[in-house]
Amino acid sequence: MTINYNKEIMNSHPWTFFLLLFKWKGSIWKAVYLETIIFLIVYGIISAIYKTVLADSNQQTFESLIRFFDKRLEYIPVELILGFFVTTVVNRWTKLYQTIGFIDNIGLIANCYVRGNSEKARIYRRNMIRYCELCQILVFRDISMRTRRRFPTLETLVASGFMTKEELQLYNSYNTENNIRLGTKYWIPANWALCMTYQARKDGFIESDYFKAQMEAEIRTWRTNIEWLCNYDWVPLPLMYPQLVCLVVNLYFMIAVISRQLITPKHEMSNEIDIYFPVMTFLQFIFYMGWVKVIEVMLNPFGEDDDDFETNALIDRNITMGLMIADNPMTTPEVRKDQFFDS
Amino acid sequence: MTINYNKEIMNSHPWTFFLLLFKWKGSIWKAVYLETIIFLIVYGIISAIYKTVLADSNQQTFESLIRFFDKRLEYIPVELILGFFVTTVVNRWTKLYQTIGFIDNIGLIANCYVRGNSEKARIYRRNMIRYCELCQILVFRDISMRTRRRFPTLETLVASGFMTKEELQLYNSYNTENNIRLGTKYWIPANWALCMTYQARKDGFIESDYFKAQMEAEIRTWRTNIEWLCNYDWVPLPLMYPQLVCLVVNLYFMIAVISRQLITPKHEMSNEIDIYFPVMTFLQFIFYMGWVKVIEVMLNPFGEDDDDFETNALIDRNITMGLMIADNPMTTPEVRKDQFFDS
Amino acid sequence: MTINYNKEIMNSHPWTFFLLLFKWKGSIWKAVYLETIIFLIVYGIISAIYKTVLADSNQQTFESLIRFFDKRLEYIPVELILGFFVTTVVNRWTKLYQTIGFIDNIGLIANCYVRGNSEKARIYRRNMIRYCELCQILVFRDISMRTRRRFPTLETLVASGFMTKEELQLYNSYNTENNIRLGTKYWIPANWALCMTYQARKDGFIESDYFKAQMEAEIRTWRTNIEWLCNYDWVPLPLMYPQLVCLVVNLYFMIAVISRQLITPKHEMSNEIDIYFPVMTFLQFIFYMGWVKVIEVMLNPFGEDDDDFETNALIDRNITMGLMIADNPMTTPEVRKDQFFDS
Amino acid sequence: MTINYNKEIMNSHPWTFFLLLFKWKGSIWKAVYLETIIFLIVYGIISAIYKTVLADSNQQTFESLIRFFDKRLEYIPVELILGFFVTTVVNRWTKLYQTIGFIDNIGLIANCYVRGNSEKARIYRRNMIRYCELCQILVFRDISMRTRRRFPTLETLVASGFMTKEELQLYNSYNTENNIRLGTKYWIPANWALCMTYQARKDGFIESDYFKAQMEAEIRTWRTNIEWLCNYDWVPLPLMYPQLVCLVVNLYFMIAVISRQLITPKHEMSNEIDIYFPVMTFLQFIFYMGWVKVIEVMLNPFGEDDDDFETNALIDRNITMGLMIADNPMTTPEVRKDQFFDS
Amino acid sequence: MTINYNKEIMNSHPWTFFLLLFKWKGSIWKAVYLETIIFLIVYGIISAIYKTVLADSNQQTFESLIRFFDKRLEYIPVELILGFFVTTVVNRWTKLYQTIGFIDNIGLIANCYVRGNSEKARIYRRNMIRYCELCQILVFRDISMRTRRRFPTLETLVASGFMTKEELQLYNSYNTENNIRLGTKYWIPANWALCMTYQARKDGFIESDYFKAQMEAEIRTWRTNIEWLCNYDWVPLPLMYPQLVCLVVNLYFMIAVISRQLITPKHEMSNEIDIYFPVMTFLQFIFYMGWVKVIEVMLNPFGEDDDDFETNALIDRNITMGLMIADNPMTTPEVRKDQFFDS
Repeated sequence: MTINYNKEIMNSHPWTFFLLLFKWKGSIWKAVYLETIIFLIVYGIISAIYKTVLADSNQQTFESLIRFFDKRLEYIPVELILGFFVTTVVNRWTKLYQTIGFIDNIGLIANCYVRGNSEKARIYRRNMIRYCELCQILVFRDISMRTRRRFPTLETLVASGFMTKEELQLYNSYNTENNIRLGTKYWIPANWALCMTYQARKDGFIESDYFKAQMEAEIRTWRTNIEWLCNYDWVPLPLMYPQLVCLVVNLYFMIAVISRQLITPKHEMSNEIDIYFPVMTFLQFIFYMGWVKVIEVMLNPFGEDDDDFETNALIDRNITMGLMIADNPMTTPEVRKDQFFDS
Repeated sequence: MTINYNKEIMNSHPWTFFLLLFKWKGSIWKAVYLETIIFLIVYGIISAIYKTVLADSNQQTFESLIRFFDKRLEYIPVELILGFFVTTVVNRWTKLYQTIGFIDNIGLIANCYVRGNSEKARIYRRNMIRYCELCQILVFRDISMRTRRRFPTLETLVASGFMTKEELQLYNSYNTENNIRLGTKYWIPANWALCMTYQARKDGFIESDYFKAQMEAEIRTWRTNIEWLCNYDWVPLPLMYPQLVCLVVNLYFMIAVISRQLITPKHEMSNEIDIYFPVMTFLQFIFYMGWVKVIEVMLNPFGEDDDDFETNALIDRNITMGLMIADNPMTTPEVRKDQFFDS
Repeated sequence: MTINYNKEIMNSHPWTFFLLLFKWKGSIWKAVYLETIIFLIVYGIISAIYKTVLADSNQQTFESLIRFFDKRLEYIPVELILGFFVTTVVNRWTKLYQTIGFIDNIGLIANCYVRGNSEKARIYRRNMIRYCELCQILVFRDISMRTRRRFPTLETLVASGFMTKEELQLYNSYNTENNIRLGTKYWIPANWALCMTYQARKDGFIESDYFKAQMEAEIRTWRTNIEWLCNYDWVPLPLMYPQLVCLVVNLYFMIAVISRQLITPKHEMSNEIDIYFPVMTFLQFIFYMGWVKVIEVMLNPFGEDDDDFETNALIDRNITMGLMIADNPMTTPEVRKDQFFDS
Repeated sequence: MTINYNKEIMNSHPWTFFLLLFKWKGSIWKAVYLETIIFLIVYGIISAIYKTVLADSNQQTFESLIRFFDKRLEYIPVELILGFFVTTVVNRWTKLYQTIGFIDNIGLIANCYVRGNSEKARIYRRNMIRYCELCQILVFRDISMRTRRRFPTLETLVASGFMTKEELQLYNSYNTENNIRLGTKYWIPANWALCMTYQARKDGFIESDYFKAQMEAEIRTWRTNIEWLCNYDWVPLPLMYPQLVCLVVNLYFMIAVISRQLITPKHEMSNEIDIYFPVMTFLQFIFYMGWVKVIEVMLNPFGEDDDDFETNALIDRNITMGLMIADNPMTTPEVRKDQFFDS
Repeated sequence: MTINYNKEIMNSHPWTFFLLLFKWKGSIWKAVYLETIIFLIVYGIISAIYKTVLADSNQQTFESLIRFFDKRLEYIPVELILGFFVTTVVNRWTKLYQTIGFIDNIGLIANCYVRGNSEKARIYRRNMIRYCELCQILVFRDISMRTRRRFPTLETLVASGFMTKEELQLYNSYNTENNIRLGTKYWIPANWALCMTYQARKDGFIESDYFKAQMEAEIRTWRTNIEWLCNYDWVPLPLMYPQLVCLVVNLYFMIAVISRQLITPKHEMSNEIDIYFPVMTFLQFIFYMGWVKVIEVMLNPFGEDDDDFETNALIDRNITMGLMIADNPMTTPEVRKDQFFDS
């Protein structure tokens, strides 16, 4: 489930942001705790070996290794690579969300143009909406783990009522070799929805050609948005870029696990205390790794992370709401004066 | 109230920006004073304990702790995380404002297409506008504290005249279990407004189908914008990201409260003065915390902070102005030559 | 006047950018000279007191103060705060300019659809354009100092011919208590312009309903753009953000005035020369303060700075050009072959 | 082939990003391994010469050279130049992808407006789609290596069935001197497609002028998008900018090959170990060079790199899918109640 | 000529970017060589004076000056100011290019709606296109050096066939005092083009009012785009901003010319070599100055730099292509089955 925290941060108090920290689901804590533990264990083991197992001369060799790495750790450009990459990823994430598809407009335009309370009119409206929703589900099945799990086969779509058996048959009849890839079958339910408008016009439920064209334009807009979800899925940011970011941060801390060891006062006069726990490196680890986690979550928001888009909830919302709109085309209050009416 | 300071900064004088500093409402001062005081008190207590309570050897231990933290404070990447996050938040804030909904266009297009000064025509126009406004209020009630407080129940909407009793009844009749979440009922007043156009056309107040379609398109645009306020509310930026930013800044200063203690000259030769007040750390605190506050305010602009969007004022403006437009469709000056007319 | 320097930088020579430096109007020099002088005087006074007035022991105390600040000056995060803020401000400034309103399209579309050279047709066209321009002037009066100064009262609009007396009366007749705020009266001239199209259609000057609708759409687009100037004015960037930026830079240099004092060689062996003039701090001051000035100018481009938008020139341009277009609807060259016509 | 890794990163586990690292195709490893080897060899040779060949005094000279460069290496501003440039390049890359052309909408709108299952209607639809696709292929031939290799001459287009011989003849008949450059012939198939709509309307397959205009608008949108691929190809980012970035990184490491040599303990007391392999410089090399590779790949996504756009696959998808859509205009399920239908 | 290097960077090899470096035209080398030489000469002269002319005590004074500057050079914030400014400039440059005007759509829509191969129809189409192109040329003459040089007077437009004598007379007849500024005459050819559509409709070459309106909308879109070239030219980025950037970089290197002098080993023990040539400062100079050059070229892309937009080539392309399209409205291949047609 997408974690909604807007209510908590509505007003800015000194403790506002603090409260955010005590969330677990979808939190930075949940995201990085495993990595952090591993990091600390490895650090601890190395530290223990260095301080207890190694002989004095070996210790000195190890210490010069520490110094070697410590001085050069700054060569690795972590901050800026993360910063610029996160900007790119957030932009992409925002675009994806903007095209994800809320069906309200299809419902309302169907109500506007396919008029009447007759059963036939209702069927037309409901089918248009259902076909549009079907289009969305088919795409979601291919890009979202959650929806795939909910609808592992097309038959489950029939079982849940999103498709009839006849429709599935018709859908499958298009099956050809190279349709599998590249989403070449997503257009089918969109085409059905468009055909519905044609027949509704022929049957007189749509009152003018212009209305029909508007209706069709809205369906095409819907489909185009949905299609871009696929297209963005087809061509992600070049693999190298996330690889690079991943590499930078991970190697940084692989080196840090050595370079951040405190040299024993025996061998180096230092006026610093050894608190045995690498507290600052630990904090740095959380921040950088947390930033990487933000990137991971936003890079593909169609997974099953706590904060990924809730595709299934969206499907339920769209179908419930769409059909409810389709069923209530004209139940409008009587036309009468409002309370502010002055004369 | 949104703080408007445009008048003050109209012209660029040396003192222009200075004057901004003497504002209190919505100011950086008001936002951070509490945190700053807490920070200074904690700093002061620690400082007092260190300098007066601790024995000499304990002082030296504490000093090596100070040195330990001071050297490593730079590990925490505050600036860039804040900078990149604030850019993201400002973009989102701008988009929210752009879809917040100013009703003028609905009013003017209603005047254009639903013609006539007859009472019936006025009622049609006023109802269209009222329904659109109702749509906005319903959304605002769910995302804005202020509006929720103003209209805690739907009955208060009736009392304030935004809805009639009949409309509320009709609205409630749609009530189903899973409507509560995901804004599935916002479409109802929009549908009413669309139905109004249909009836107005049937009654001959709208002169052509094309005009009706334009009118409906404008209402749909209005609703789509309003809907995106919800949608953005539904999927905020992943929780982790603000958590991370909050964590970075707060931990930075938790460490700083120790690491920025001045070591007594007894134990360390320093050619610096001890002015007892950590003036630079204090300034740094204000800047970083201030930046965080900017983020807090812009991350959810529908709260009750000084600088959040004034949803209630917007509602009042929209209904007053909308109805005024609806009441004056044709009061236009006589068609006559203007003063520049040359012949 | 907006400073236009495009001609100067058309070609890239080594001296291209240099030449820009010798401009005074709207220049960085003009913007910061006063602050710079103040800064240098304060610096000079402190320097003089320190070196001549203070006794030796006081000097040493002061020097430890200098060292204290100098070491900690880097705590203040000037560069990145400025950099990220300026990006935000430039984006907003660009959007404002894009909606500022050039009337050409209104004029051309009026020519396209309100046909004929008859006096009545000309009057219709001229009135539409004048009403649109009036709408712009009314908004500019509220957001731009320059235009407010030019048209302090609505009567001056009548005197300058942008309004007739009858129109002003009609306009004032809408006056209600809560109209003053939130721009609730800007719609009136837009409504007049829309009514003009209605009457022109009724009188047969517009040949089809579709043309009328296009005409009205263009007027609405114009009004919507103009309205966003108001809306952006109504909700500026949260006050805190510019306050923060202002504070950062000013405090930085308040500290710098002390911390950048050169310690006398008497008390500190230094192999640096004392050139008495803090040349590098002076340069730094110009750069940071200059960046702040860029922000100030772009944050509210409707003031009277050299580089703010020339609202009055725009009004003149729009009315002159708009009326000229309206007067020449059909003066088109005879239809004949062009010189490239081959057969 | 574009490397698709969305599936791998769907959910955020500690090892998610790690797994990405073990890809070879399109990976950062494949991109930089050659450069890295060269860099290491050069580094090794210099190191060997310095430590074994040079006489002691020469060594000392060389060491002062190392120190000279090492101290000044920070002058070269690698990180920020890369960061800002990569942002620009990603934006451009995104825009290119958004206009690359997916033919679905053309197909669906042809189905909507060119009605009927008659052979003639099918031919019209198929031709429209084929001409649109032809337009895309002609552009791809000029900007994409892959497509150029697939269709080295126009005759190959005939052989693959994208063009008929008659069409090629007609196409070639336009050949004039200055057509070659600037893509002046891309409009021809678009014009054919537009003419098809005209004839289809004349033949009665399109039912109204309005539909024809919509159809034509869609084709023009398609062509405009395709055209921008050319336009962006015509005016790339100014040559200087990528040159600069290339120069910065390459020179940085040319200097580094010297400045990062470890000075022998003989001549400089150092408490660091000499591990003979410049591990940190090696890592830094991978990161910076990797960032440059990301830029290279995204700067011109129409090449033959692993992660470049798969223009040929897109062409195949478009033609297969387009024609399939054109062939199935009305095969729509019977209009009947859906399973949720309640009454 | 815009330098096109897309072909060179199509595929990513280790040497891909290297090859870019060997270009001269439009290269970073050509852009900065002059400045670099000047910088090196000044540096050399100062160096020579310091090392050979100055007496020993003067040398020591000079050296303390060097140290003074060297320590403080970092005060000047070059990198970030350049980075943020270049982002702003690239955005503006991209927007300018997107509105620069490619005439294809005008041509194709003229073919769609002004039907027929009759001479009269061709004349109409050709004139519409020519007037649109004229509009572009008039704007280019005012903002682009290259086009101004090609068409120094309006008479040269007649000579080149873009205007007839009668048209020029008509155009000049509008000449009024305050037309000169602010582009108030650019609308004239656009108005002519719009009038053409009106007459073509009256003469029956355009088949319906709706088509005429679409045609006019396309012409208005063209004109609006072209107009924004002017508008952006009218209000450039505030002068201060480029001034600031120019100042920062130039002053940085003016200081550097002193502060980067190597102090003779006589006076300062240094374990660095003096290689007499300030190689690293030289590199830094190239990078920063190169970045400035990128900004210069992109800030006003209508000059005569190697990489500026080729306005003249665009004009030639537009007129050639536009007229060719206008001459071939219906030459379309016969409607016949394609090779993939299965039945």
